[in-house]
Amino acid sequence: MTDVKDIKADPADEFWMRQALETAKNAELIAPPNPAVGCVIVKDGVELGRGSTQAPGSAHAEISAINDVYAKGMTPEGATFYVTLEPCSHYGRTPPCALRLIKEKAARVVVGTTDPNPLVAGRGIVMLKDAGIAVTTGVCETEAIESNIGFITRMKRGTPWVRMKLAASLDGRTALENGMSRWITSEDSREDGRLMRAHSQGILTGVGTVRADNPQMNVRLPGNWKDPPKFVCDARGSMPSESRILEGAPCTVFVAESASEEAVERITAAGAQTVRVAETELGKLDLGEVLHEIGKREVNVLHVEAGARLSGSLMTAGLVDEIVLYVAPCFMGSGKVLASLPHFERMQDIYRWRYHAVATAGSDLKIVLRPQS
Amino acid sequence: MTDVKDIKADPADEFWMRQALETAKNAELIAPPNPAVGCVIVKDGVELGRGSTQAPGSAHAEISAINDVYAKGMTPEGATFYVTLEPCSHYGRTPPCALRLIKEKAARVVVGTTDPNPLVAGRGIVMLKDAGIAVTTGVCETEAIESNIGFITRMKRGTPWVRMKLAASLDGRTALENGMSRWITSEDSREDGRLMRAHSQGILTGVGTVRADNPQMNVRLPGNWKDPPKFVCDARGSMPSESRILEGAPCTVFVAESASEEAVERITAAGAQTVRVAETELGKLDLGEVLHEIGKREVNVLHVEAGARLSGSLMTAGLVDEIVLYVAPCFMGSGKVLASLPHFERMQDIYRWRYHAVATAGSDLKIVLRPQS
Repeated sequence: MTDVKDIKADPADEFWMRQALETAKNAELIAPPNPAVGCVIVKDGVELGRGSTQAPGSAHAEISAINDVYAKGMTPEGATFYVTLEPCSHYGRTPPCALRLIKEKAARVVVGTTDPNPLVAGRGIVMLKDAGIAVTTGVCETEAIESNIGFITRMKRGTPWVRMKLAASLDGRTALENGMSRWITSEDSREDGRLMRAHSQGILTGVGTVRADNPQMNVRLPGNWKDPPKFVCDARGSMPSESRILEGAPCTVFVAESASEEAVERITAAGAQTVRVAETELGKLDLGEVLHEIGKREVNVLHVEAGARLSGSLMTAGLVDEIVLYVAPCFMGSGKVLASLPHFERMQDIYRWRYHAVATAGSDLKIVLRPQS
Repeated sequence: MTDVKDIKADPADEFWMRQALETAKNAELIAPPNPAVGCVIVKDGVELGRGSTQAPGSAHAEISAINDVYAKGMTPEGATFYVTLEPCSHYGRTPPCALRLIKEKAARVVVGTTDPNPLVAGRGIVMLKDAGIAVTTGVCETEAIESNIGFITRMKRGTPWVRMKLAASLDGRTALENGMSRWITSEDSREDGRLMRAHSQGILTGVGTVRADNPQMNVRLPGNWKDPPKFVCDARGSMPSESRILEGAPCTVFVAESASEEAVERITAAGAQTVRVAETELGKLDLGEVLHEIGKREVNVLHVEAGARLSGSLMTAGLVDEIVLYVAPCFMGSGKVLASLPHFERMQDIYRWRYHAVATAGSDLKIVLRPQS
C-alpha cells in the first residue's frame, strides 16, 4: 500500500493553511492594491499568533502575525509560518518579509502560492531556503490563488481581473422594450451587487449606461464602505457634465484619440480625469488598452456594470474573466438583451462558458461563470 | 417547557413514513393512472413487511405489504400501517384497502395525505376509525403530496399536472435565428429530459414543433421504458401524414371545431386519433379544454415539450404547474425565444415564478420553477 503522505498533503498543513486563508479575508478590503494575505504562526501544533495584511505601507501579514506573537509574550523562533502568499523579497513600501522571517529564526515556512509579482516570483522562497529554512509550497494552492485572484492576474498580465455583473430574467432580458427594469431582481440581489462593487478597486461602465440610467455607481450600503474609483468608456466624450457618476469617488473617462479637444475639456472641467486611448476601425475604444490603463492604476479586481453594448464588446474581445449573473425567476418576453453579440450562423461560434458557482440571492439565483478553458 | 410531542410529529412516525415514501418510488412508473403508494407495516418498532402499488388491477400498496408480511410467515395483526396515501374505500379495479386493513386487525394506520379522489376523500379514514383503528394523518404530508402530485392534481381539477420542459442559453435562446440548436445543452441534460418524458403519462407538443423538428417524442433510453401517449395541438389539422410523432405510442391530435373534415380525415388515416375542441376568438385551440381532454385520458403528469408559441400560450393562460428549464452556460445573442409572450409595458405584468429546485445536469443547470403563489 502506498504511503498516504506520498500522495496527499499533510492534513495539519492544510488545516493551518485554511486558518491562514480565513485570516486573509480580514485584509480583503484594506490590502489592495497589495495582495490580501493571511499568516498563522504555529509551534508544536499550537497556534502562537496570526495576522493579515494591513493598509498599504503598514505591516504585511507575516509582520502582523509576528507582532501578535510578541504581544502575547512569546517568540516565533523555531515556529512554522503558514502564509497564503509567498513572503516578499523586495523593498517596496515595506522591507522584505522573507528577511524578517530569517531574522526571527523561523523553522519552516508553508506557502499557499508563489507571488507572481515579477519583483518576487520565487525569490522570497529562495532567500528562505538559502538561510536554511524548510519551505513547503502549494498547500491549498487553488484557494490561495482564488483569494488573491485580482492581484495575481494584474501581476501576470498587467490588467485587472475583469468581473462583469449582469442581471436578467430567465429569458435573458435586462429591461422591457420601453426601458423599464425596476425591479427585475430582488433587493437582496441588488444589495449583493453593491457589496461586489465594494470588493473591487474600480468600477467600469459605458457612456450609454451613464446617459440612460445616470447611475452613481457607488457602494451605498449601511456602514463604513469605501467607494472604488470609477471608469467610463466614452469614445466620443459625450458624457453629460452633470452626470452623477462624476460625484464621490474619482472618475476617469476613456475617450478615443479622435475625440474632440472640446469634449475632453468639458469632461475635465466637470471633474473627471480623461485618458485618450487607441480606437478600433469601427471607431470603438481599444478595450485591451482601456484595461491596461486601469491595471496601471493598480486595480486588482475591476467590477464591470454596463449595458449590452460594452458588456457584449468585452465578451467578444475575450476580456472577461468572470460573469456574475443574477437571474430573477421571471419571464419578460421581448426587451433589452444582456449583451450585444455578433450574429452567429453556426453553433460552434456561440460563447460557451462554464458554471463556477451557483447560489441563491434573495428570490434570485446568483450564477458565477468562468471561461471554459 | 412545552412537550415536544405537542408541537412535532412523532419522530418514529416520520421515520417509517419516509420508508413508505421511499418504497412508493418503486411504483412511479407502473402505478399510473393509479397513485404510486408505499406501505410499511411495523410492530413494536420492527418492520414486518413493505410494499408498493402494482400495475392497475393488481395489488395496491397495502395489499402488497400484507402479502410481504405473510410471505415471511408473520401476520399484520396488531401492527401499524404506514401508507403514503389514504387507503381506498371504494370498489374500483380492486376491493377497498380500508376493508382489508380492518379484516387484518391493524392496530393503527398512519397516513401521509388523504386521497383527493372524490370516491375516497376521507371515507377510507372514516371506515378505519369506525372499526376502532387509530388513525394519524398528515405525517410528511408535503412529501406525500409531492410523490403523487400528478394524481392529486388530476383528482382535484380534472386536468393533469402540467410540467413544461424548456432548454435555453443564459440569454434565453432556444436556437439561432437560422433555427440551429444542435446542441445547446449537454447530452446529460438531453438524457435527463428523455427520462422526464418516461416519468409522464402523456407528452404534449404543437404542430409547429412537429413541422420544424419532426420529433419522435419517445423515451429512447437504454433499457425497457414505456413510451407515453402523445398529444399534438394542431388547430387547422395541418400535420404532415408522414410525421414521426405518429410512430410508436398512440398519438392524439387536437383540432379546432372549424378544422376541415378533409384535414381530420387525413390525420385519422395517418394513424392518429383526432379530437375536436373549442377555439378562442383568435382561432387558437382552447387549451383549458385540451387539458381536460388529456385529463379524461387519465394522464396524471403531462410533459409539455413545445416551441415558443404553445409554451407561451400555456404560460399566458396560466395553465403551467411546473417549468423544468435546462440552462446551458452559453450566450447565443439573437435567436429564437423560449416562449412567445404578450408585449409588456409595465414591470408588474411580467410573469413571475419562484425557484423550486436547482441542480446541475452535466455542464448545464436544471432549474425547476413553480408558480409564485
